[in-house]
Amino acid sequence: MPSSWGKVFRISTFGESHGESVGVVIEGVPAGIPIRLEEIQKDLNRRRPGQSNLTTPRDESDTVRVVSGVFEGKTIGSPIALIVNNQNTISKDYENLRDTFRPSHADYTYQAKYGFRAHVGGGRSSVRETIARVAAGAIARLILEDDLGIKTVAWVDTIGIIESQLAEDQYPKTREIVDGNEVRCPDIAAAEKMRSLILKMKEEGDSVGGIIRCASYNLPPGLGDPVYDKLDGDIAKAILSIPACKGFEVGSGFSGTQLTGSKHNDEFYVEESTGRVRTRTNNSGGLQGGISNGETLVIRAAFKPTSTIFKKQNTVNLAGKETVLEAKGRHDPCVLPRAVPIVEAAVNLVLVDAYLYQRAMNPQWFKKWAKIPSYYNELKF
Amino acid sequence: MPSSWGKVFRISTFGESHGESVGVVIEGVPAGIPIRLEEIQKDLNRRRPGQSNLTTPRDESDTVRVVSGVFEGKTIGSPIALIVNNQNTISKDYENLRDTFRPSHADYTYQAKYGFRAHVGGGRSSVRETIARVAAGAIARLILEDDLGIKTVAWVDTIGIIESQLAEDQYPKTREIVDGNEVRCPDIAAAEKMRSLILKMKEEGDSVGGIIRCASYNLPPGLGDPVYDKLDGDIAKAILSIPACKGFEVGSGFSGTQLTGSKHNDEFYVEESTGRVRTRTNNSGGLQGGISNGETLVIRAAFKPTSTIFKKQNTVNLAGKETVLEAKGRHDPCVLPRAVPIVEAAVNLVLVDAYLYQRAMNPQWFKKWAKIPSYYNELKF
Amino acid sequence: MPSSWGKVFRISTFGESHGESVGVVIEGVPAGIPIRLEEIQKDLNRRRPGQSNLTTPRDESDTVRVVSGVFEGKTIGSPIALIVNNQNTISKDYENLRDTFRPSHADYTYQAKYGFRAHVGGGRSSVRETIARVAAGAIARLILEDDLGIKTVAWVDTIGIIESQLAEDQYPKTREIVDGNEVRCPDIAAAEKMRSLILKMKEEGDSVGGIIRCASYNLPPGLGDPVYDKLDGDIAKAILSIPACKGFEVGSGFSGTQLTGSKHNDEFYVEESTGRVRTRTNNSGGLQGGISNGETLVIRAAFKPTSTIFKKQNTVNLAGKETVLEAKGRHDPCVLPRAVPIVEAAVNLVLVDAYLYQRAMNPQWFKKWAKIPSYYNELKF
Amino acid sequence: MPSSWGKVFRISTFGESHGESVGVVIEGVPAGIPIRLEEIQKDLNRRRPGQSNLTTPRDESDTVRVVSGVFEGKTIGSPIALIVNNQNTISKDYENLRDTFRPSHADYTYQAKYGFRAHVGGGRSSVRETIARVAAGAIARLILEDDLGIKTVAWVDTIGIIESQLAEDQYPKTREIVDGNEVRCPDIAAAEKMRSLILKMKEEGDSVGGIIRCASYNLPPGLGDPVYDKLDGDIAKAILSIPACKGFEVGSGFSGTQLTGSKHNDEFYVEESTGRVRTRTNNSGGLQGGISNGETLVIRAAFKPTSTIFKKQNTVNLAGKETVLEAKGRHDPCVLPRAVPIVEAAVNLVLVDAYLYQRAMNPQWFKKWAKIPSYYNELKF
Repeated sequence: MPSSWGKVFRISTFGESHGESVGVVIEGVPAGIPIRLEEIQKDLNRRRPGQSNLTTPRDESDTVRVVSGVFEGKTIGSPIALIVNNQNTISKDYENLRDTFRPSHADYTYQAKYGFRAHVGGGRSSVRETIARVAAGAIARLILEDDLGIKTVAWVDTIGIIESQLAEDQYPKTREIVDGNEVRCPDIAAAEKMRSLILKMKEEGDSVGGIIRCASYNLPPGLGDPVYDKLDGDIAKAILSIPACKGFEVGSGFSGTQLTGSKHNDEFYVEESTGRVRTRTNNSGGLQGGISNGETLVIRAAFKPTSTIFKKQNTVNLAGKETVLEAKGRHDPCVLPRAVPIVEAAVNLVLVDAYLYQRAMNPQWFKKWAKIPSYYNELKF
Repeated sequence: MPSSWGKVFRISTFGESHGESVGVVIEGVPAGIPIRLEEIQKDLNRRRPGQSNLTTPRDESDTVRVVSGVFEGKTIGSPIALIVNNQNTISKDYENLRDTFRPSHADYTYQAKYGFRAHVGGGRSSVRETIARVAAGAIARLILEDDLGIKTVAWVDTIGIIESQLAEDQYPKTREIVDGNEVRCPDIAAAEKMRSLILKMKEEGDSVGGIIRCASYNLPPGLGDPVYDKLDGDIAKAILSIPACKGFEVGSGFSGTQLTGSKHNDEFYVEESTGRVRTRTNNSGGLQGGISNGETLVIRAAFKPTSTIFKKQNTVNLAGKETVLEAKGRHDPCVLPRAVPIVEAAVNLVLVDAYLYQRAMNPQWFKKWAKIPSYYNELKF
Repeated sequence: MPSSWGKVFRISTFGESHGESVGVVIEGVPAGIPIRLEEIQKDLNRRRPGQSNLTTPRDESDTVRVVSGVFEGKTIGSPIALIVNNQNTISKDYENLRDTFRPSHADYTYQAKYGFRAHVGGGRSSVRETIARVAAGAIARLILEDDLGIKTVAWVDTIGIIESQLAEDQYPKTREIVDGNEVRCPDIAAAEKMRSLILKMKEEGDSVGGIIRCASYNLPPGLGDPVYDKLDGDIAKAILSIPACKGFEVGSGFSGTQLTGSKHNDEFYVEESTGRVRTRTNNSGGLQGGISNGETLVIRAAFKPTSTIFKKQNTVNLAGKETVLEAKGRHDPCVLPRAVPIVEAAVNLVLVDAYLYQRAMNPQWFKKWAKIPSYYNELKF
Repeated sequence: MPSSWGKVFRISTFGESHGESVGVVIEGVPAGIPIRLEEIQKDLNRRRPGQSNLTTPRDESDTVRVVSGVFEGKTIGSPIALIVNNQNTISKDYENLRDTFRPSHADYTYQAKYGFRAHVGGGRSSVRETIARVAAGAIARLILEDDLGIKTVAWVDTIGIIESQLAEDQYPKTREIVDGNEVRCPDIAAAEKMRSLILKMKEEGDSVGGIIRCASYNLPPGLGDPVYDKLDGDIAKAILSIPACKGFEVGSGFSGTQLTGSKHNDEFYVEESTGRVRTRTNNSGGLQGGISNGETLVIRAAFKPTSTIFKKQNTVNLAGKETVLEAKGRHDPCVLPRAVPIVEAAVNLVLVDAYLYQRAMNPQWFKKWAKIPSYYNELKF
């Protein structure tokens, strides 16, 4: 099972829902970077279960440990291993799933692929794997902030048919704004309705889906590679790799297909204050030809309703017989609030990889758009 | 510029719009496969310009040459290089673009990234690069057909606001059906309206976007790898790498976010005639957890309106000054009809790579779901 | 720091000498394989320090833990993480090395590359990293044994100027034979002399080098890929990645350069008992064109004398001043006995990767040369 | 057949001996570099057949064509495809080889691996594939020269038992010195004896092997990555990928195994004129822990005698019957003189990849050791 990602900032993750731990090994982290462990933990806390009554009651502190690659508080260029132990694993809850395929889960497909599977907690297909990329994404985030001033902020855009109403100039600029409510939707009126809907679903033993929007600010132009490593292509893959994700769009996305070219094109102009080339509209979503153009990068990710529900469902068992499933255990009635930091991590991982690759390719670009952080001055030889 | 793709069936493409040629090198093609050159040419003919008056008048025969990897009509395991020469390249048409950034094209972003660019015909960002993957995709298609009986068929689902109306059981099963009209939309009534709209746009010097739907039939369960090499993640990346693509969805996609879990889940049953595990609905779009489940794989790709239009547009030039662009040259008022074979190629390239990787991982799966084509019997030692 | 390896059976290692632990994540392990933990531990025990008075007194039990990828005793296709905690880490022993570059160690080069380094125990450049690949190599070994009957056995061929004298038909067929003495040289007479030399060096605070020979038996023809992934090329890289290794040869190697072609060529014949194509001599060392030919694969690896010695040496410090180093701490006067299992692991890792790739490429080859182990019969769907 | 190589400066080669052409696609070449086609051709001329009566009479001009990636004389960041057509292909010469395996060639192993092979001229296993890497190596060389002042020079060190006698301070500093005689051995007295031996072998229809030594001057410290991408490991793999190569060593190599640590260690000192850290001896061969230390990088590559000889040899045919082979066709009685530029290319390809990766990892290192060539000043945005 290939479980790695990235060209330069390369992550390789491991771990199942009910194993000893989940973790990530990151190759390609430059040396000398101060690792603020609390920054990694902060991101993990935003995705951990049990945050609010909108999420699963599985209680995990998700405390991260740096096992390698950091010495006296700074990266040394070696692979960084980050590990989180699983604690609240109640395997007996899953005994009834040993022989039964849960509808719209990955039980049957794992069985068909491997001939054998870990039936407890979804095994490797569990959303617990995302701990690994959120932890790695935190390091990516620190590099992007320090070197380029890039900030990536995601939020809940829709839940079911409830849509937030924010124009591009109202998009939240910080994660703190997003965390202002449990739903993580900065349109307060919409957030309240979303909250009610999620709680209603929880009560009914049902679930609901939605869409996350994510904006990355302060990207310099020139990140991303044309053709097969386009910024939007890589982000699409990273986003689709999140459990329950069924769709991706950048900029105008699906709705942009209904416009004419003359309406859709983003005209260029020169921003007086900075002399930078800018566009008056942003239907492109911050990139053209897969390369950032200096505008805000805007993407959306569609998440289906959680597959685990507490209603009776028809299904098939390992013996190939039809049967009826009544789910037990713990689940999120809606994954969206917890998916917010996962989406951000996906975007940050793609951006940092594109940035480091671009550093390899064009030192003049580096000179123009990035700065070597001051802590590099302590480095010798 | 990374330009390669795939784990096992690995392609590496090269070539710009107005260079000598475009081509592809494919590593990881098994030996002994009869290469039917006319099959590769057939796919290229479906994407070549000048097919109808809906497309660009640039006239290219796009005749493919097999430069390596094939001996006496069969693959020998070596890298296969496929090359198509550019013929109808009128570089002087582009002299006015040397210094001017076309809105919503990749001119400015290439310049910002590399500091230097080929201004003729979009250089590497041109849709001519897709010749390479369509050629490689044809070989992928032959392997999938021979070993597994998989058929991938794409078609135009919407143009602007005009939507085709086909239920999943009405989806076209062959490419011949799709090619029944110039628009490549098998809903004849919709196709006629789409055709009119495209011609109207052409006349007005404007352009229009749309959505392509693609179905893959006869997939065995077990293709695709969880986590970072999910079938849908890899296809998303492949699709987003096509010029002008702004969105991707699988199965219920964005609209599925509005359903509850109890409505969205695909219940399993046992198909009497075959004993196979099937689902009654297909909101999952043919996969769960990134792995095929044996149902039809259904995806959609959103294409923005063509960026080249013949109306005056405000923009900026290489000197950093604002200017006005009036486009000349040749263009498609709508890329959708020609994008159909490109989408199919993207899907086939992902599927064949997943198939070959799965062959490495699970010989029992191979025994159950695939067959060694009879031409292998001629192989010795 | 790229720390991964392999196309299909892909390992990614992490950990420094004096960090919490060292470990490896393996992607691309087929599902359903019973993991015999004691087999992994057995290989680690052969490389652990403190085995005999020929090796460093650093005492580490090197107990391995399977953190992921195994469920109820069998692989599930997920990445397998194997972790060994460091125990006997005495960082204060290294305080004098914070500012001093040890001659012929990687201290200065790490500093020059990263600007910052972990000075304790060599950090990432320590031979403790090899724990990771020995652990991964054990799983590779199990697959090769089960599916193909391949056995890889390495031994000490020379120490200093003392050479073992074994013709190819006297090569040891099992690791137990090799482990018959502490030196791991199956030529008993030579082993005794080697032992004395190593102890003499230890007493003098000096060190000595030597050569390891490694034979792999029962390879089917057809493993390895021509051109850039040749079996010998990949093994060369794997061998040179072992600390202190300075040379590699396959078959006749350097001495074969002195022969004429008519003496060197390995004539083919047909083995009567099996009908297999064989060669009468084996100057090729078991492969031609980078692909196994069915003969015994024979390689040699040259190891320099250990760099850590207890004599005074001139060197330079972090301030760029010349200084004198007197080493303290623990070290092996000769790395060869402990390098034996590391060399085997390197070879097994390359072979298993070549095997799995070949499985992807040629199912007929698989049918002819490999067998699906019986434990696969328990797999369902 | 994987045929690609490198992390950042990534090459992918294609072509067989008697196909239309051989070529290479290079991804990861920075934009803006003036491509001096005559520099690429110069390197190809040094490896082309028919240069002297020491080499095969197959006459090929090996004229290179830049098919993509260069516009108006400069690289544009796109993949660069370089193609050389085969001209002097006399396939009928090989008809007798359709069914017969040449001893110590890759005929049998290809057949066993793929079940099918191109019998003419060795197909993909022919040394003609090395055209591709020599062409790519020339671009690598230009980047290394321009940015870092690195020069790599290889020469013939031994032929059969005849050894050149040059101390490290007598190593040739330019390729022109090496090209002073047809053998490419700068020790004139030895060269004359080597020449006689090669001609004697040619006359006898036999062949002879030898060793090439290669030195790279002016490497800054810090190139190469520890563990699996060590400079010497990567070079070993690159060297072993050259047809007929059977061994590799760096620095003291195999002979260094006979020294004690106190003799072998390279003590550090500070060079007065430059303030740089240097070593007094160079047993390490220019690197420690896989990373360059600023001394001359010295490696050796062992080449077996050419497998094609004109004496009768026993062998086996495709029907599995024993038979006798009498070779016809053209061949080099000794590959060494022509292998010199191939070895240089291998080293340059590894070095440029390590350099570009290091640029990604450490901008401070770049500032200290490299310079942005002046032609970058013309780049805009």
